[in-house]
Amino acid sequence: MIIIGEKINATNKRVSEAIVNKDAALIQELALQQAEAGANYIDVNAGTGQGAEQEIASLKWAIDTVQSVTDLPLCLDSSDPQALLAAMAHYQCSKAMINSVNAEPGKLEPLGRLAAERQAPLVALVMGERGIPGSVEERLSAADLIVTHLTRLGVREDQLFFDTLLLPISVDTGQGLVTLKTIQQLKSRYPSANTVIGLSNVSFGLPNRSIVNQAFLLMAISAGLDAAILDPLDAKVMNFVRVADMLTGKDPACKGFIRAHRKGLLV
Amino acid sequence: MIIIGEKINATNKRVSEAIVNKDAALIQELALQQAEAGANYIDVNAGTGQGAEQEIASLKWAIDTVQSVTDLPLCLDSSDPQALLAAMAHYQCSKAMINSVNAEPGKLEPLGRLAAERQAPLVALVMGERGIPGSVEERLSAADLIVTHLTRLGVREDQLFFDTLLLPISVDTGQGLVTLKTIQQLKSRYPSANTVIGLSNVSFGLPNRSIVNQAFLLMAISAGLDAAILDPLDAKVMNFVRVADMLTGKDPACKGFIRAHRKGLLV
Repeated sequence: MIIIGEKINATNKRVSEAIVNKDAALIQELALQQAEAGANYIDVNAGTGQGAEQEIASLKWAIDTVQSVTDLPLCLDSSDPQALLAAMAHYQCSKAMINSVNAEPGKLEPLGRLAAERQAPLVALVMGERGIPGSVEERLSAADLIVTHLTRLGVREDQLFFDTLLLPISVDTGQGLVTLKTIQQLKSRYPSANTVIGLSNVSFGLPNRSIVNQAFLLMAISAGLDAAILDPLDAKVMNFVRVADMLTGKDPACKGFIRAHRKGLLV
Repeated sequence: MIIIGEKINATNKRVSEAIVNKDAALIQELALQQAEAGANYIDVNAGTGQGAEQEIASLKWAIDTVQSVTDLPLCLDSSDPQALLAAMAHYQCSKAMINSVNAEPGKLEPLGRLAAERQAPLVALVMGERGIPGSVEERLSAADLIVTHLTRLGVREDQLFFDTLLLPISVDTGQGLVTLKTIQQLKSRYPSANTVIGLSNVSFGLPNRSIVNQAFLLMAISAGLDAAILDPLDAKVMNFVRVADMLTGKDPACKGFIRAHRKGLLV
């Protein structure tokens, strides 16, 4: 299971203020905590709403700030392709992840070329310019468009991380199954490609959010999920990442699980 | 999600002693606790190893003992078809569940006829007389034999509860995926039939068993599981039964989940 730590995101008020005020301490602390908790990537979203130029400057500052405390690769996160192109030019790490494109050609074309050139993992939302499709079929159609376009640009299927789009269950209780079926179908249609979800969305608007996140993560892993953007500081969620690795045959002789138990890591 | 409470089982030493000594108090307490915790069926296994005649007498006593405190239907559990025939004759509840047959004609024939006559739900282990098959394909072949035989006897597909056989992950880390795939394939091949697992087996031999049980239950539900034989007194497992119902669209407007939260039931 690939864990992308979600904490450095400007949609969070404290993080946004830290980015605007160039308060490196908070950003570094969040990076270090997530690295220690077992994240494989650190997501960096610097969209503070101060305009495109400022977002590029903030992304570059945040990249340098995080890199000063950890070698973990970053997942550069913006809805603006120009910001991602500028940030990737600044961040020359060979493992950088680009987050994200969708089926819109205006995004696929420049970021697809960049991903092909850099051999970078690329997150692709299975939607077009008309917003998030409600049905599995429409999401698969968006995925087909994305694959067709990116393959032409030289992006390999295994570079792709399809974000299957996870909407709050409190808004529509049918959306859990839509996301699970989308994951299953994508894994069947594009077996070399990866799937990813932004986990915390599922519990938006509900009490006891962690328990809902824990449950959906396990259900999604069972459907074939490869990666999740989540809060690695939620120890119970991270427990289940370990257990799920064991239950899907990725922890030979259960050694990782037993070691975590002995270290008191299973809370 | 259909919950079959596993606690009244003579493989447990205390339960076995209570059955041998006709100690009704313990059996009644376990029945009541499981009913209050949200079980839909109470499993009753009275195989204390004292021989076939004694098992029949013990099953009848246990049925009466449980019925004296709860109206929940029972899941009569024995590997001996004669014991199940005798127990079903004694227990005339219209919702009684028979646990279990497998692909052996010596079991399918008498218990299939009984299930057809009583319109009773019937647990069928997807194995033959040569023991538990290691592969998904062999388990599906056993299911095919079972369906062919039972259909001829007049058992409807929706009466069937396929027990997909869950082996300890500590013995073979590949078995989690075998069981998950067997559930998926059975739901695809026989959509009207139900699937069931004996959940606690998965964590046998490991520390922190509850967390492993919780995780596998959610993964199995995602694969299409309809029912589980489990310990309903494990509050964390029962939490996730509620959450999984919500995440699979069975809790309109999340009302059951929010009510459970308000009552402090989500631990």
